Amino acid sequence: MTAHEPRAVVLLSGGMDSAVVLASMQRDGFDCIALSFDYGQRHRVELEFARRVAARARVREHMIQSIDLRAIGASALTSDIPVPKHRSGGSEIPVTYVPARNMLFLSFALALAEARGARDIAIGVNAIDYSGYPDCRPEFVGAFARAANLATKAGVEHAAGGEPWFRVHTPLAALSKTGIVSLGRTLSVDFDLTLSCYDPSREGQPCGECDACRLRAQGFAEAC
Amino acid sequence: MTAHEPRAVVLLSGGMDSAVVLASMQRDGFDCIALSFDYGQRHRVELEFARRVAARARVREHMIQSIDLRAIGASALTSDIPVPKHRSGGSEIPVTYVPARNMLFLSFALALAEARGARDIAIGVNAIDYSGYPDCRPEFVGAFARAANLATKAGVEHAAGGEPWFRVHTPLAALSKTGIVSLGRTLSVDFDLTLSCYDPSREGQPCGECDACRLRAQGFAEAC
Repeated sequence: MTAHEPRAVVLLSGGMDSAVVLASMQRDGFDCIALSFDYGQRHRVELEFARRVAARARVREHMIQSIDLRAIGASALTSDIPVPKHRSGGSEIPVTYVPARNMLFLSFALALAEARGARDIAIGVNAIDYSGYPDCRPEFVGAFARAANLATKAGVEHAAGGEPWFRVHTPLAALSKTGIVSLGRTLSVDFDLTLSCYDPSREGQPCGECDACRLRAQGFAEAC
Repeated sequence: MTAHEPRAVVLLSGGMDSAVVLASMQRDGFDCIALSFDYGQRHRVELEFARRVAARARVREHMIQSIDLRAIGASALTSDIPVPKHRSGGSEIPVTYVPARNMLFLSFALALAEARGARDIAIGVNAIDYSGYPDCRPEFVGAFARAANLATKAGVEHAAGGEPWFRVHTPLAALSKTGIVSLGRTLSVDFDLTLSCYDPSREGQPCGECDACRLRAQGFAEAC
């Protein structure tokens, strides 16, 4: 790390995807600030995993913001709606969707980026998520970036020649779970430090049956 | 109030502008949910005023979200930077700007709206704010609304015939402070329940010298 590397804010959940995003941004020369959320999620133990990933990656700062999405509810991840096991698939939006979550997470990342003099923000949305979660689609990320540049002092003052100031990176955008595992291996990500389960034990033992567990297992089985 | 009135989420700060917005949305037939933030603001006592306004207006719910913008900093409202008194004006963005604040507040409003089955969100941005705060400009509000409709399940599922689902109302958009006072009087808003100061005493006594105090006094002096 030199003092001259540009800073970036990376959303870090404790799951495998965001660990790969962090490694990918560091490879690309960014001095990274990790941002996690204690939001009332059922799988709050993921924050322990986020701490381990952030420590191993030697980020310059790891902020954990506490917000109460349980008071807002309307999701299996933040209320008493059960997390489905062995989901049949299909194209409907799953009950694990959390209202406006990525809008909130990216807005905090934007505030932190502006306050720390960072221009770049990274989030681990990927091709698997697109089918189910509206706030993982490239259309949304693009619309967020546009609003971000209009919302902020830095966005207004530093924009030059039609080039927006804030940039939202989605390095996993085109990847399947298998592709994410392969990229992570190339970047020497220690996946043992990560947890993907939506419904783990209090100690962080994955359930092995929810969507997140199944997709993770599939990614490892297929990656070479 | 009937059970059939459409619901709206109204951002309520405890200041005069948002009290007028709430009254205006109620006049327009909305069953309102008020949303306030304990965000580490220097003028945290404003929340007491928000509670009084919400109680007087008999909103169906008043949520206060706690978020830590002090940890993010970079504003006179959330750090030790002094609040300027007798500011000379000018077109620069003031030090009371809080990074990405309206993006955050509107994102929470969106999450709450989606979870409560509300389609409408209201915020008290107005013509006075435009000059200084980028996140009060109509361009930003429009870009936020676009992102909001792409980010959410309701935005995706309920959009019909090119008509976006979520709508962001800015009933004060065209008004000066004087116009806001006049509208508030028409709507019987009790301004004594509100506090506009950025730097009040712990008991809620306004300083009388900051921008917010001066604009408020000017509004009352000029309103008829």
